[in-house]
Amino acid sequence: MSAFDRFLFVIFMVFLTISFNEVLASDPDMLQDICVADLTGKPKVNGFICKENATAYDFFTTVLGTPGATNNKQGSAVTAANVMQIPGLNTLGVSLARIDYAPDGLNPPHTHPRATEIVFVLEGELDKNNGKVPAAVIAAFNSQLPGTQAIAVTLFTSTPPVPDNVLAKAFQISIEEVKKIESNLAPKK
Amino acid sequence: MSAFDRFLFVIFMVFLTISFNEVLASDPDMLQDICVADLTGKPKVNGFICKENATAYDFFTTVLGTPGATNNKQGSAVTAANVMQIPGLNTLGVSLARIDYAPDGLNPPHTHPRATEIVFVLEGELDKNNGKVPAAVIAAFNSQLPGTQAIAVTLFTSTPPVPDNVLAKAFQISIEEVKKIESNLAPKK
Amino acid sequence: MSAFDRFLFVIFMVFLTISFNEVLASDPDMLQDICVADLTGKPKVNGFICKENATAYDFFTTVLGTPGATNNKQGSAVTAANVMQIPGLNTLGVSLARIDYAPDGLNPPHTHPRATEIVFVLEGELDKNNGKVPAAVIAAFNSQLPGTQAIAVTLFTSTPPVPDNVLAKAFQISIEEVKKIESNLAPKK
Amino acid sequence: MSAFDRFLFVIFMVFLTISFNEVLASDPDMLQDICVADLTGKPKVNGFICKENATAYDFFTTVLGTPGATNNKQGSAVTAANVMQIPGLNTLGVSLARIDYAPDGLNPPHTHPRATEIVFVLEGELDKNNGKVPAAVIAAFNSQLPGTQAIAVTLFTSTPPVPDNVLAKAFQISIEEVKKIESNLAPKK
Amino acid sequence: MSAFDRFLFVIFMVFLTISFNEVLASDPDMLQDICVADLTGKPKVNGFICKENATAYDFFTTVLGTPGATNNKQGSAVTAANVMQIPGLNTLGVSLARIDYAPDGLNPPHTHPRATEIVFVLEGELDKNNGKVPAAVIAAFNSQLPGTQAIAVTLFTSTPPVPDNVLAKAFQISIEEVKKIESNLAPKK
Amino acid sequence: MSAFDRFLFVIFMVFLTISFNEVLASDPDMLQDICVADLTGKPKVNGFICKENATAYDFFTTVLGTPGATNNKQGSAVTAANVMQIPGLNTLGVSLARIDYAPDGLNPPHTHPRATEIVFVLEGELDKNNGKVPAAVIAAFNSQLPGTQAIAVTLFTSTPPVPDNVLAKAFQISIEEVKKIESNLAPKK
Repeated sequence: MSAFDRFLFVIFMVFLTISFNEVLASDPDMLQDICVADLTGKPKVNGFICKENATAYDFFTTVLGTPGATNNKQGSAVTAANVMQIPGLNTLGVSLARIDYAPDGLNPPHTHPRATEIVFVLEGELDKNNGKVPAAVIAAFNSQLPGTQAIAVTLFTSTPPVPDNVLAKAFQISIEEVKKIESNLAPKK
Repeated sequence: MSAFDRFLFVIFMVFLTISFNEVLASDPDMLQDICVADLTGKPKVNGFICKENATAYDFFTTVLGTPGATNNKQGSAVTAANVMQIPGLNTLGVSLARIDYAPDGLNPPHTHPRATEIVFVLEGELDKNNGKVPAAVIAAFNSQLPGTQAIAVTLFTSTPPVPDNVLAKAFQISIEEVKKIESNLAPKK
Repeated sequence: MSAFDRFLFVIFMVFLTISFNEVLASDPDMLQDICVADLTGKPKVNGFICKENATAYDFFTTVLGTPGATNNKQGSAVTAANVMQIPGLNTLGVSLARIDYAPDGLNPPHTHPRATEIVFVLEGELDKNNGKVPAAVIAAFNSQLPGTQAIAVTLFTSTPPVPDNVLAKAFQISIEEVKKIESNLAPKK
Repeated sequence: MSAFDRFLFVIFMVFLTISFNEVLASDPDMLQDICVADLTGKPKVNGFICKENATAYDFFTTVLGTPGATNNKQGSAVTAANVMQIPGLNTLGVSLARIDYAPDGLNPPHTHPRATEIVFVLEGELDKNNGKVPAAVIAAFNSQLPGTQAIAVTLFTSTPPVPDNVLAKAFQISIEEVKKIESNLAPKK
Repeated sequence: MSAFDRFLFVIFMVFLTISFNEVLASDPDMLQDICVADLTGKPKVNGFICKENATAYDFFTTVLGTPGATNNKQGSAVTAANVMQIPGLNTLGVSLARIDYAPDGLNPPHTHPRATEIVFVLEGELDKNNGKVPAAVIAAFNSQLPGTQAIAVTLFTSTPPVPDNVLAKAFQISIEEVKKIESNLAPKK
Repeated sequence: MSAFDRFLFVIFMVFLTISFNEVLASDPDMLQDICVADLTGKPKVNGFICKENATAYDFFTTVLGTPGATNNKQGSAVTAANVMQIPGLNTLGVSLARIDYAPDGLNPPHTHPRATEIVFVLEGELDKNNGKVPAAVIAAFNSQLPGTQAIAVTLFTSTPPVPDNVLAKAFQISIEEVKKIESNLAPKK
């Protein structure tokens, strides 16, 4: 496989992604030059209060340099680089994430309730990952903290739980089938 | 049953609703007094172009006065009163909907990609509808057209379809189980 | 009177309402999942700081279930269900109110400086209330705290007062007529 | 009177102004470098469609250089410099106005439904105009078209009219007194 | 020179101004009636926390009444009237500034990263100041704190410094020429 | 050089970048599911009117897959992937760009008037490019069309030109030095 093939850089937004991510919440505009997040400071406000002593390191992270571990059921891993990892993003209205896919891996259907997403394919192909080699993308968001709701996991394993009969009716399956999905999706203990 | 019981007016937001509806997209502000939507006018723009001759009727609808028909699989009906029914809402950033529930009815899990929702219980109780009588709510949104994505239906019956193996992996079920859900959720022909 | 008549559910926006309420301020978008208002917490910020321990009750109120007392000069009562009654609405950008009207009652001309309003008629007719029975509406707003300025009361009874000669000139009436309106509109001691 | 006295430049926002103008609607952000308004172009949209051939003159006006005529009942004149006079302001979210006051003149209580206002006193003093010489201010708004609702005029002389009995009840005056105000405020024929 | 000439009041936006100031960031909307800035209060947030005891003086300043001292290299002086001088502007989304120009004076090219600007000419002419008498303008912004970046000063005298070879390459000049500009622009010690 | 070295993926925002890019204009929110830009359609509006027949290709581009040609004076090339290349981004509020740097290359100081920027380093190191091999980054913006103003080029080569004496005074250099910079920065004929 040539270097050219291996690093086919393409940007695209899959239609599946769009149908779930067309949320258009843009963060409120900033009111001063910088307001680096004090992530553990009190009180909590909409967003974060500002750190007293900001440095250049508050605007920097290396987490996106390392592929995430994809040896899990879905064969994928999301590495976030939002205001939680880069406190300097507070009030700036943008963030990034890296998603790695094992061969045949899938980032399950999800929504980002506070952002629109655009995807740059770093490596491999992205229609699920039907390839024989890993794939990776960089996703950009117009929010400092886009939020994520993995649909299947949220519906079938949240606390407090969505009642089984609600899920049975919503998906038109039996209570037993609901319980089976819940059991399969539940985190290993 | 007393009049008091029958019209127990309560407002509340169920947690399930919140966990799926905490989308915070507010519409752009208006730039003139009124811009009543010309729903079929060309060209299409973000929102709608303005009708030439607006009247008081463009700000009015009676659709919310009639309960929707709930004799369907889910036992519920949504009646919208947004910019499509009330053209005068164009650029105003608010809309309403009425949801009717048969006894044991359910409005299946969904998201509104362009709005936050607040719910006023018109009649009955709302934890699903476990009651013996119909229930009804008025939902208010901070968008002229909040949009709706019924999760199960969108995932299992959209066109073009989400591939069966993606759904199987997302819900950790077999391809056969995917096909069964698709068949149950598909609209009757 | 039939049940059908009695519960004629209509939604409409009176032109008077529009000419005074076409304010298009939408709240800033939220930056995290929830930020339940700590209504008495310090410091004060734009909106409210977030409560440390939120519960489901912060997203719920029963105040809209009870008609307000309309035995007053105007024959109307406004019951608010905004962030002050439902702290969970903080950062969510929506709220409700209930307005009850005695026969011949009037909700005096007013503006909501931070929201657009849409009105659902719960009971009775709403052109003032010309009916013989009470009327009630649910109003929805695209702000967590729309604010209200009752025009006559604000102009004629605010503290510090608008000078009498300003009001006389604005309404082209005499100082004596200004004083009479002030006296009529002043809250009873 | 010295030149210094005569041009006492002060900026302030009267409390009356604030209590009526604290509307916080900021215009939607622009999406390209310029979009000069085609004021008569079709179709109408939220704001204005863009002119094909913009020139430097679209960003300029001299209307604020001439004091308005204040020989009227209220003794004041508002000269607007918004998108209607400066088409280049379209999508820019700011505008100005000049208000001139005759001695003892008054700009009657009003609201700007789409903007906050800040006032710079060009000449004279501004508590009404109690001075013996003319006064003038420059008002700045955070909207390309702030809109204006003169409260008394809107309530008592709009078309279609607010019913007399509504106004009588709102201001707690007699129908005769309502009719007298209407007559005084109505534009001369 | 007549009083009329001397106070030729014109409003205009120079094209140079536009090409650098077409930034369209509008402040987030307010969520309560007033939130007067506590300028030194802790913690810092996006904007300012609210002062406990606001007075009318928080909405007022006289700084714009005095021409700034223009006896400097550029022959101009900017006097700001934003949230730092008028704490009541916090959350209100507008501010003003006064710029004075000596004969032949220049307000050097700059950007306002958080606002659009509109300019009212108070006195003199404004194409630089080519006149023989002082000129002055009032600038209005759609932000409580528009921010200012004087381009030459920011690039050549910031701390930490932009490396000389970056500036040499950017302006296609020699390192020696870079050092000369740095020396000329540096504040006198 | 190892594959690891060669693809050191880091994300960071250089302080120089921040000091010039802290512009916080977020695009207005969308009002429908999609509004794919009709890039040449009439009339022009804020943003773009919607294309009648959108396809999946409107959401996709391959331009970011090819490094830009960096054999120019600055040793860098910007490849945009905004609404002009991906019409489907219209109303979505996000875009990307790729910047390639030759060894010793520089992307000259600039501002993006309508967006905040976050940078992901694809290859090489980014403090200028002091390395011996090419460098490349992906930049993400919270606007569909962030705009770019290259400071030196805009000031010294725009049409109509900024007068030489303005530039001389702004940078405290001689008219001759201004003319030399203009000549060096002017595009080759």
